[in-house]
Amino acid sequence: MSVYTPVSEAELAEWLGGYSVGSLASCEPIKAGIENSNYFVTTTQGRYVLTLFERLPAAELPFYLNLMAHLARHGIPCPAPIADLSDQYLRTLKGKPAALVTRLPGRSVERPGVAECAELGALLARMHLAARSYPVYLENPRGPKWWRFAARELAAFLDLKQKKLLESELDFQAKHRFAELPRGPVHADLFRDNALFEKGRISGVIDFYFAGVDCLLYDVAVCVNDWCLADPLADRRLDEARTRALLGACHSMRPFGALEEKAWPAMLRAAALRFWLSRLHDFHLPRPGMLVHAHDPDHFRDILELRVAQRPVWVD
Amino acid sequence: MSVYTPVSEAELAEWLGGYSVGSLASCEPIKAGIENSNYFVTTTQGRYVLTLFERLPAAELPFYLNLMAHLARHGIPCPAPIADLSDQYLRTLKGKPAALVTRLPGRSVERPGVAECAELGALLARMHLAARSYPVYLENPRGPKWWRFAARELAAFLDLKQKKLLESELDFQAKHRFAELPRGPVHADLFRDNALFEKGRISGVIDFYFAGVDCLLYDVAVCVNDWCLADPLADRRLDEARTRALLGACHSMRPFGALEEKAWPAMLRAAALRFWLSRLHDFHLPRPGMLVHAHDPDHFRDILELRVAQRPVWVD
Repeated sequence: MSVYTPVSEAELAEWLGGYSVGSLASCEPIKAGIENSNYFVTTTQGRYVLTLFERLPAAELPFYLNLMAHLARHGIPCPAPIADLSDQYLRTLKGKPAALVTRLPGRSVERPGVAECAELGALLARMHLAARSYPVYLENPRGPKWWRFAARELAAFLDLKQKKLLESELDFQAKHRFAELPRGPVHADLFRDNALFEKGRISGVIDFYFAGVDCLLYDVAVCVNDWCLADPLADRRLDEARTRALLGACHSMRPFGALEEKAWPAMLRAAALRFWLSRLHDFHLPRPGMLVHAHDPDHFRDILELRVAQRPVWVD
Repeated sequence: MSVYTPVSEAELAEWLGGYSVGSLASCEPIKAGIENSNYFVTTTQGRYVLTLFERLPAAELPFYLNLMAHLARHGIPCPAPIADLSDQYLRTLKGKPAALVTRLPGRSVERPGVAECAELGALLARMHLAARSYPVYLENPRGPKWWRFAARELAAFLDLKQKKLLESELDFQAKHRFAELPRGPVHADLFRDNALFEKGRISGVIDFYFAGVDCLLYDVAVCVNDWCLADPLADRRLDEARTRALLGACHSMRPFGALEEKAWPAMLRAAALRFWLSRLHDFHLPRPGMLVHAHDPDHFRDILELRVAQRPVWVD
């Protein structure tokens, strides 16, 4: 399980006295998630998620919390940080930076269909449009600089075939940068388990703690590589209907430009590379105390190889 | 009905393109309310209320909208203004200042019991605590200065008995100012129809367009004069159990001071005076085009006379 820092009900009840959210009714550790300690918190006023930040540099936390606050007040269904009586989103609990955010209704969908992919595409575009007025800059922490850093750290653990694929992809990506693509704050980790659905609509986009400024199209590629697989466990080719649904809905809210069409195949490869690298990193170089959820790196190696081999579909 | 400015579905659909809230599903004029034109707006994303401001000076609107945004992000269940793609809460529609806010669930309670009055008391205190960090100042627009202004305007319309009551109360209030009472932004109009309940809990506090900075206790008095009447239609004395429930719940969240105890009888009279005056004003000097809801002024004259005559209960 993924709670690194235990918090007792008495500690939490006292801590909540610093907010205007009423008194503690119940508290339950959340098992999903690998980066922070999370709790579902219910008070006399409402339902919240408490996060104790275990890994992220404290200096970067305001970027994430203010981004969520920004998106929430633009109508994007994302967790809204709750300000305390001193008007701060970020506080300390058990010696860790901690924040209380609204808990959104709905459930994630393991096997999204065409309709869910279209919903996601539209939401992505709306989120990107809303985020454009967000004035703070933080580079995508898992961007090209980090790829090269991770590749060096991983060198000793990879076999020849993996090394060759990695080097050739880093080389390809270095030659295919698209500096003129539309950029802005992106979620960068909007996998199926980070979107909640209720009655067929997206009721929540959660877990913004990998967000940063990058190409908007990169965010789309991360989603397509997870949401549109023919079969996430057995066939990592892209399902054409779902891919077209996601791209088409996105395009109808924020029309893609010609450069985005040109960049699309490289972007899918970049998105595959990033998660292949981070999974390899978590697998070979786990952080101390990280017992949890070692995702299979080969899943994204397969995706990367398939994206290299096959020209993907684009909007009609 | 209270919609002064009609808006067509086509106009609204286009206007919503300036937001990240998805596309228009339906729109319905709201008949309650006497100050603005209001519509329930449903989009593919959620449920909202659109307000076109008909009366309020445009310069004051940011105070209200930012106060609601402030309270909402502190966990107070109030309408949260939605920012548009230029990151503004306030826009223009049909030549009027206009804002889109979240629509809250629940229904108002016509005959609140002890439990509802306790809920309201606790919420009032939480709202006052959360509002203390709101940095903008706007004097209560219906405070003592306005009383004197309204009294002058109304002089010609009042009979001798009314005049005598009014003059004697203005005189009493002038002699009973409590400059040292805890102050801050207050709702100042939290009547039963401005609180929504769901499953016994307050799910929404709405209509902040009379808010301003005043004594926190004044806000409590406005509520008690509406929520705690023995019978709102027949007996305007205070029901002791409901009054104690409201005050007690408020006190347990934000303990009242000795000065607040001392000021309480005068504060109930001030709150009665303010609404007697505004109802007289709406009755004798209605604004052009104001067809709506001429509330009975005598209701608050009765309340004022009763508060003058009887010492009210206080917290145990």
